[in-house]
Amino acid sequence: MKATVIVTLKPTVLDPQGMTIHRNLESLGLASITDVRQGKHFDIGLKDDVPAESAREQVERLAREVLTNPVIEQYRIVWE
Amino acid sequence: MKATVIVTLKPTVLDPQGMTIHRNLESLGLASITDVRQGKHFDIGLKDDVPAESAREQVERLAREVLTNPVIEQYRIVWE
Repeated sequence: MKATVIVTLKPTVLDPQGMTIHRNLESLGLASITDVRQGKHFDIGLKDDVPAESAREQVERLAREVLTNPVIEQYRIVWE
Repeated sequence: MKATVIVTLKPTVLDPQGMTIHRNLESLGLASITDVRQGKHFDIGLKDDVPAESAREQVERLAREVLTNPVIEQYRIVWE
């Protein structure tokens, strides 16, 4: 079983990495790009014999307690 | 128009960040998780009046030339 956890900055939080990338795009001829925001992407593998409910609970805990800083970040989980 | 660029390490490249996260999961009771691999996630905003073909080309160039280190990373683009 596989899941993906995507952790992004909350919309109200400034993203200096994304802003730095964006500032340099015009000189590369990429003037149509108006915004770049960087986040983190985690591919999670799970044992095949885990009940679906337990798997969901464990990935939810991983995302909430380990991968996300709740003050400035939000997460979403995508199941494959 | 919006796109997402996901940059991950090539499958053959070791991921020390993911391994460090994974090593600490058993003590948290998350023993069903067998693998964690970390990548980068970029939300890209584009001007609304850009022709679709030009938008695709610019996001492709951004992903290939700016966001990805081709020696160790691969990328994929998701359109919304």
